[in-house]
Amino acid sequence: MRFLSETTSNGVSERLFALGDVPGVLWSPAGATGGRPLVLMGHGGGWHKQAPGLVARAGRLAVQYGFAVAAIDAPGHGERPKSPQDERFPAEIGELLATGEPVSPQVARHTAALAERAVPEWRAVLDALQELDGIGADGPVGYWGLSLASVIGIPLVAAESRIGAAVFGLAGHESLAGAAAAVTVPVAFLLQWDDELVPREAGLALFDTFGSREKTLHANPGGHLELPAHEEEGAERFVLRHLLGAG
Amino acid sequence: MRFLSETTSNGVSERLFALGDVPGVLWSPAGATGGRPLVLMGHGGGWHKQAPGLVARAGRLAVQYGFAVAAIDAPGHGERPKSPQDERFPAEIGELLATGEPVSPQVARHTAALAERAVPEWRAVLDALQELDGIGADGPVGYWGLSLASVIGIPLVAAESRIGAAVFGLAGHESLAGAAAAVTVPVAFLLQWDDELVPREAGLALFDTFGSREKTLHANPGGHLELPAHEEEGAERFVLRHLLGAG
Repeated sequence: MRFLSETTSNGVSERLFALGDVPGVLWSPAGATGGRPLVLMGHGGGWHKQAPGLVARAGRLAVQYGFAVAAIDAPGHGERPKSPQDERFPAEIGELLATGEPVSPQVARHTAALAERAVPEWRAVLDALQELDGIGADGPVGYWGLSLASVIGIPLVAAESRIGAAVFGLAGHESLAGAAAAVTVPVAFLLQWDDELVPREAGLALFDTFGSREKTLHANPGGHLELPAHEEEGAERFVLRHLLGAG
Repeated sequence: MRFLSETTSNGVSERLFALGDVPGVLWSPAGATGGRPLVLMGHGGGWHKQAPGLVARAGRLAVQYGFAVAAIDAPGHGERPKSPQDERFPAEIGELLATGEPVSPQVARHTAALAERAVPEWRAVLDALQELDGIGADGPVGYWGLSLASVIGIPLVAAESRIGAAVFGLAGHESLAGAAAAVTVPVAFLLQWDDELVPREAGLALFDTFGSREKTLHANPGGHLELPAHEEEGAERFVLRHLLGAG
């Protein structure tokens, strides 16, 4: 893991890094040493590791709770090269939406291919992060990622015993069922009731499939990009409850 | 409204009252005068106005946020006389559950009959409460009631323009659809994913039916009586957000 830059503002250190050809960012309390909880955050399709929502959430978790938070660019996103299929994908989805055809199969196919590459990348990043002095290998680890970041995160959390709780959502397709059934840690699952990219029944079926004894479904009216702010806050409380045992 | 007794502990005044033949209880901060937010709380089937969950919640809302909270015994519950059908109902449900037959139609029929009586009772109680010095008619009013108290609360909130937000849940039957469609205030709706009394699809359909622009569905694994503590806390935040505008 090579650190490329560090900026500090409002008590939060933001370090850009690269692990092989995977660019990432690590937020932590400025000057932090010693072990601490770590949250891995994925971004949605078309976004990148420093999407505004991720930066704001990482800052809150670092300053208010002393967490470390890491994000990486998903394949074909942010600073990473796009394949011809990556380039075509947004227009393909736009055309399907415009003509009222189902987008879910195409979304599932494209994002599954990205997830196949992203899961081993995340695991290597987690290995490297846990070797850092300011994180260590003894603290709890969570995952937080919606939409594309759930398609990546569900098989990641299924495979990765170090991750102890996960926030997923804005996703649902039968191709995720096998991995979801293998997830056994507490899951908060956020659905939008009128998601134009995720059929309601497919989202509910995915929630049903998680193997976790403790899982919570939160659904609200609105489209894929209209998650209400109170659910962001609720997901933060979920992470705190499960990583810190805080009420 | 006749007040029958007052006890004060830990800063909370608990006053028993009767309005006609409806027994009730009013919690408020000890010594409170002047207007304040009011929450009407219903109890579940087989319970009563001073069920432990209601007492604890009312105490928190009174002490921490200065709310007034009122509960009444539903028809056939608590101090109120039971009809022969009220007496038979628990055993009927027990037999249906034991033989694996659907209980939902029988629950819907029995609770709808109770609701028909309870809705005008609640409206008269609200009239009387708003005439009290320590509550007044200018503060926001919420409703909180699950299970039987949703069967009562949904038509109440549909009919009663003074109620500005509601916590419902553990209910779902097509007979509630008309009233639910007429509810337009913010609703938090709590479902149990494995509710032995409420078919999952019926609960989801009821959530879908609410006419509210703002509504939030929270579902968790477990049976009718296994609502997790974090959803109680989440519902409290919902009430505060909508009655106080607090984040």
